[in-house]
Amino acid sequence: MRVRLDLSYDGQNFIGFQRQPEGRTIQGEVEKVLSKIFNEQTNITGAGRTDAGVHALKQVVCFETNKNIELSKLRYSLNCLLPKDIHVDNALQVADDFHPRHNVLAKEYRYKLNMGEANPFYEHYRYELKQKLDLTAMMEAKEYFIGTHNFQNFTTKEEDNHEFIREIFNLELVTKENELTFVIVGTGFMRYMVRMIVGTLIAIGLGKEKSDFVLERLNEKSRKTVIYKAPPQGLYLTNITYQGEEQK
Amino acid sequence: MRVRLDLSYDGQNFIGFQRQPEGRTIQGEVEKVLSKIFNEQTNITGAGRTDAGVHALKQVVCFETNKNIELSKLRYSLNCLLPKDIHVDNALQVADDFHPRHNVLAKEYRYKLNMGEANPFYEHYRYELKQKLDLTAMMEAKEYFIGTHNFQNFTTKEEDNHEFIREIFNLELVTKENELTFVIVGTGFMRYMVRMIVGTLIAIGLGKEKSDFVLERLNEKSRKTVIYKAPPQGLYLTNITYQGEEQK
Repeated sequence: MRVRLDLSYDGQNFIGFQRQPEGRTIQGEVEKVLSKIFNEQTNITGAGRTDAGVHALKQVVCFETNKNIELSKLRYSLNCLLPKDIHVDNALQVADDFHPRHNVLAKEYRYKLNMGEANPFYEHYRYELKQKLDLTAMMEAKEYFIGTHNFQNFTTKEEDNHEFIREIFNLELVTKENELTFVIVGTGFMRYMVRMIVGTLIAIGLGKEKSDFVLERLNEKSRKTVIYKAPPQGLYLTNITYQGEEQK
Repeated sequence: MRVRLDLSYDGQNFIGFQRQPEGRTIQGEVEKVLSKIFNEQTNITGAGRTDAGVHALKQVVCFETNKNIELSKLRYSLNCLLPKDIHVDNALQVADDFHPRHNVLAKEYRYKLNMGEANPFYEHYRYELKQKLDLTAMMEAKEYFIGTHNFQNFTTKEEDNHEFIREIFNLELVTKENELTFVIVGTGFMRYMVRMIVGTLIAIGLGKEKSDFVLERLNEKSRKTVIYKAPPQGLYLTNITYQGEEQK
């Protein structure tokens, strides 16, 4: 039986999603509890790896088990045993060939930026920026990201990726009072890609770069990684849509 | 010159407001930074002591200095030097006889309870309760608290307080979707008093006690402290009103 779990988590006290020999990870915590419930080593595959400090309102993971278990009970047990900063929102049986990363239609990330008075409750949940942003320049620049491009300059060089082509379906900047939210939807994102896109747009908003800078760095043949990377605490993985599911 | 600071803070990483020989406190952090700015030991007096894990949207502290400083610059410097989980929202000069506790007209606390699905982002900011609450019984019981009473059974016995009389001006239970907020306004609160009032109302909501229980324990001559105390993370000091200020 193949089971899919939809998770949400507060990333502030994790060193990231991916299991590591040392340190607290989402994968590590979930596998520990699943292995306890099934009384055998149970490994999960995730839809994507979020970095240290990055949050998720919807992360999808999968695992195999030959134990028979009622899914509502499994969800209940997981939520009792998991630490409070991870929550299982949904547990469902999926087809044997379902893969949480390969079958993705679209992923949505949101990045939250506070442009108002500093707030002690935002330390781990927003990027707080004191300087004024030129939203017009940012709105112009963000359009360049939409579509299919080679994003090799918007990911870490350590990412040994032979395929840097990704499609961004949509990129919106939503302002509400003093909060600016970047909503970015695409096929998939490489390491640091969202934070580098947001970081670049902020650099343009601060006047450090012109909006043409995006055009210069996209689809470039040589590797010249952008130096702008927004900090992790403002980033949320907010949705993942699969084949056969309606896109929200 | 006597200066008043209005502070907000996220209480999760503090062992409380009051300075202690060991451990991170709000008073300790603010005094450290003030002493640095003025280049001499500067002590503050607070309007009240919040416990470990309790938050504040408005805490008021005062200090004396004979240094001449522009208050907007002082506020700016404080916010640069203070850790991110404390923020100075306001700095103003006050009369020499202003005392942040003695001159209080009313204090408002809010207690936030999540009655819906658990949420990993609420670990340090809400009390999460899975059981259903009888709101009708709670609404009936909360009325008994309003008015002037002897609250000796709604504070810790360690509180060596000769005067247990306090007045509660108002106590509201506000529900919004799955969130229940207790709004409590009064002249002053002893240690654990708000958490014990909320804890008692929850015990009544869960059917552990009848609403008469409040009547029995209020104004009682013998000391019989209630055993119900809501956990700290749901509690926020939200407002303090002084003589000469309009009450919000």
